[in-house]
Amino acid sequence: MKPIPEPSRRRLVLLAQLLAQQNEEKITSIAIQKLTGWSPSQIRRDISLLELHSGASNGYKVQELRGAICAALNIGGNTDTEKKCCIVGLGRLGAALLENSIFENSPFRIAAGFDSNVNRTEVLRSTFPLHPTTYLERVTAEEHIEYAILAVPDSEAQATAARLAACGIKGIVNYTGIVLSVPETVAVENVSPVTALATIAARIHA
Amino acid sequence: MKPIPEPSRRRLVLLAQLLAQQNEEKITSIAIQKLTGWSPSQIRRDISLLELHSGASNGYKVQELRGAICAALNIGGNTDTEKKCCIVGLGRLGAALLENSIFENSPFRIAAGFDSNVNRTEVLRSTFPLHPTTYLERVTAEEHIEYAILAVPDSEAQATAARLAACGIKGIVNYTGIVLSVPETVAVENVSPVTALATIAARIHA
Repeated sequence: MKPIPEPSRRRLVLLAQLLAQQNEEKITSIAIQKLTGWSPSQIRRDISLLELHSGASNGYKVQELRGAICAALNIGGNTDTEKKCCIVGLGRLGAALLENSIFENSPFRIAAGFDSNVNRTEVLRSTFPLHPTTYLERVTAEEHIEYAILAVPDSEAQATAARLAACGIKGIVNYTGIVLSVPETVAVENVSPVTALATIAARIHA
Repeated sequence: MKPIPEPSRRRLVLLAQLLAQQNEEKITSIAIQKLTGWSPSQIRRDISLLELHSGASNGYKVQELRGAICAALNIGGNTDTEKKCCIVGLGRLGAALLENSIFENSPFRIAAGFDSNVNRTEVLRSTFPLHPTTYLERVTAEEHIEYAILAVPDSEAQATAARLAACGIKGIVNYTGIVLSVPETVAVENVSPVTALATIAARIHA
């Protein structure tokens, strides 16, 4: 299969999320357009990058399309592809993510939370264990954690990211305002409010 | 100027953020590589999309490069380009964003917060006014608010996004787990933890 370009990958991730919310058996590109704002030709081009064997003349089969996207992008929702994550930094933002319902029906499972402040790890409630950050290396190894959500204060962001990279973490969702320097084996998605607003402002201008 | 492709735009937004954090007068593409992990040829290609008149033989002038990016992407940090935003939904996640320091040194200023629960708008503390969501149309118009950070419960996400679009909001930072359907005049950046994790998982696999 040909590599999928980044903008298409981003749309396909959202399309999989959207299809998971549908109750119909079939969906047309026009219906997808209504739900996303993407043009039907764009949608068909993105879908043509997948290995999908049934035609599109009268719509895509919702579950088949979703399955093809999840397979192509490795974001399947079944338990054998469950991906373990941790949250590092349990200040206001990190603590807001302890809400387990956020990750329901997703292939991601939060297996641990970390904070350098032991009061927080003792007082906050969650359905998964919370540890002092000193245990980061031990727990990520024992639990086979692959992904991290980084929500530490900006002043600790780079040092913590470097530790996560050294732990063998594959991907970091970065809620801090710092641009992280990590080896290229670590994927970073920058989702701080300021970065997200700037990305939108740049797109509007384009 | 030629349109800047989306992946380059995303990198340039981060590069501007990174340059704002530098104290040196000049920076080379090798130094940028160390700080970001992007290849020097990638960095030079991205920068070649800007209208930058000085050479790169012994490095870019940090402030000049940052200025060129901000001008090209319309993300300048000075007050005459200040962009007004609101936060809609003040549950745990939205309330965590009331921390004003997040938006310091950015061109974005939070001008209002909204929640359908009046207890929250009365009890939460912030440096900007908090209103019941019934006032959304009135306040966004009066305050000339252009951007919204959406952090309402998933069940209210689509209806709230439609109201924001009807208010003339140009861009929505979407922290909900719902794929929003808005007119194509409204830019959406999806930054929920699950979407961000899935985007990373898809990139690792690619």
